[in-house]
Amino acid sequence: MIISSLATALLASLLALGDGTPEAAAPRPQSAQQLLAASSPSDWRRVSPEDTLYLELDNGRVIIELAPQFAPAHVDNIRKLAREGYWDGLPVYRSHDNYVVEFGDPDGVGGTTRSIGSAKVSLPIEFSRPSAGLEFDLLPDPDGWAPQAGLVSGFPAARESEEGQAWLAHCYGTVGAGRDNPPDSGNGSALYVVIGHAPRHLDRNVTVVGRVLQGMELLSALPRGDGPLGIYRDRAQHVPIRSMLLASTLPEQQRVALEVLKTDSAVFRAVTETRRNRTGEWFHRPAGYIDLCNVSVPVREASPG
Amino acid sequence: MIISSLATALLASLLALGDGTPEAAAPRPQSAQQLLAASSPSDWRRVSPEDTLYLELDNGRVIIELAPQFAPAHVDNIRKLAREGYWDGLPVYRSHDNYVVEFGDPDGVGGTTRSIGSAKVSLPIEFSRPSAGLEFDLLPDPDGWAPQAGLVSGFPAARESEEGQAWLAHCYGTVGAGRDNPPDSGNGSALYVVIGHAPRHLDRNVTVVGRVLQGMELLSALPRGDGPLGIYRDRAQHVPIRSMLLASTLPEQQRVALEVLKTDSAVFRAVTETRRNRTGEWFHRPAGYIDLCNVSVPVREASPG
Repeated sequence: MIISSLATALLASLLALGDGTPEAAAPRPQSAQQLLAASSPSDWRRVSPEDTLYLELDNGRVIIELAPQFAPAHVDNIRKLAREGYWDGLPVYRSHDNYVVEFGDPDGVGGTTRSIGSAKVSLPIEFSRPSAGLEFDLLPDPDGWAPQAGLVSGFPAARESEEGQAWLAHCYGTVGAGRDNPPDSGNGSALYVVIGHAPRHLDRNVTVVGRVLQGMELLSALPRGDGPLGIYRDRAQHVPIRSMLLASTLPEQQRVALEVLKTDSAVFRAVTETRRNRTGEWFHRPAGYIDLCNVSVPVREASPG
Repeated sequence: MIISSLATALLASLLALGDGTPEAAAPRPQSAQQLLAASSPSDWRRVSPEDTLYLELDNGRVIIELAPQFAPAHVDNIRKLAREGYWDGLPVYRSHDNYVVEFGDPDGVGGTTRSIGSAKVSLPIEFSRPSAGLEFDLLPDPDGWAPQAGLVSGFPAARESEEGQAWLAHCYGTVGAGRDNPPDSGNGSALYVVIGHAPRHLDRNVTVVGRVLQGMELLSALPRGDGPLGIYRDRAQHVPIRSMLLASTLPEQQRVALEVLKTDSAVFRAVTETRRNRTGEWFHRPAGYIDLCNVSVPVREASPG
């Protein structure tokens, strides 16, 4: 069965570490799992509860990390909306195959369902920002969509030098602020999450506000909408949102403490290399390449205490 | 709401065609929908029933086109397996988020469930083939994973000139033959379908046998498996396959006659250009790029008669 052998290979190389016969064969490169197991606590960054959203669905919790360094005005609005319970009881109303799910007020901003409270109705666009001042961890390979691609605090990002701009990229799990035709018509009350092959053509066309750190499968496996653009025709198909809260507003024991591997660490570079050139026993021909949206930035639950 | 405006823009430009005021504004480039509406019957290729599989699930039919020009031995085996009803009653046993679903005998070839009948237990690998003799429709942009990327009969493909090889690429909807560690351990009885961001690192590591033309959402929205590699831990979660049949073995009135846009047509090149540089009213900054797995090769049901 495909890649079941990855697990076998991992197991084999883990066993090989302890078999006492290092001279038996050339040492296999360390697996991602081994590299992560050998990481030190300082290789990880604790996600701030002020930047963490819990989207609570009937079947579980989706955890989103916000990116205030790229979209400060949108993140500020989203924090207000979450604090005031804007999304509680609203639905996921769109599930567009190989593209996005979207949630918020199905009648749109100014629709019949709900006021946005103290949040702002309109915001400046935050499609990109100056790259100066950002720690940008460049990937080793070229990117087709942008002059440079890499990671900023674990978020997939791109940049160019002509205008000196950087922006967050649309990869699997990217969260953005839906908008209408006017570029500045989004305000963070309608959010979409990428569930398919990276729609990088959306980069710099819409404000990206964060990414999903945990629970993607609760969104990606939703039944697809049968209407145009994957919108559910029948409101009975809507997926109810129990609540969407900022983690900082919950008592500490109700939070999940997540950590993201630092993308300027040697561990991250080594893990990425295991994915650029896979050496598991299953693999026949390593790719020698990785694209931005194939990079996986490891996330873990912090050990208690 | 995101991209709902695409529909609006389409509608607007369709209306603009008939409003009698061509001097009112510079003509908008034609949309993909307009280009397809203006295509001629000779721009389309009818899919052969000998190359068409119907995977029948409880909630609908998934239609797969086989690629005998790339994997003749595997396709031959798959046709035998389909004719002999190999998959009927077997399940989808794996649903791995952002990766693949896989179906066949959950106990593996030689497992307890089922004999493979007159099909061959082992086959030569068909990871690539000589590019000579293939009509390869090159895309305009560079590809990170391969020296050249393009389409062969509507299948996403890549090639290189050093060894003169071409191969099918792992994009959303690509169907491949699962295998174990030995490269030649696949025989087409276990099939996987890509449901996430393109895992192009699998290219030339496994035999690709076709692609899904219709019904992807029946596979991509399956609940994710909770075991390692997305395998359902509990067999009660298995998704039953009613049957998987070769279309040519069904009476004609039970078939769906599908047509694929020819990728050497001017219409296809123009449609792809509308996706490389989106000009709908929603778009702010066209990408000027498209990657192989963002290309969409149009598929339609042939008009009756």
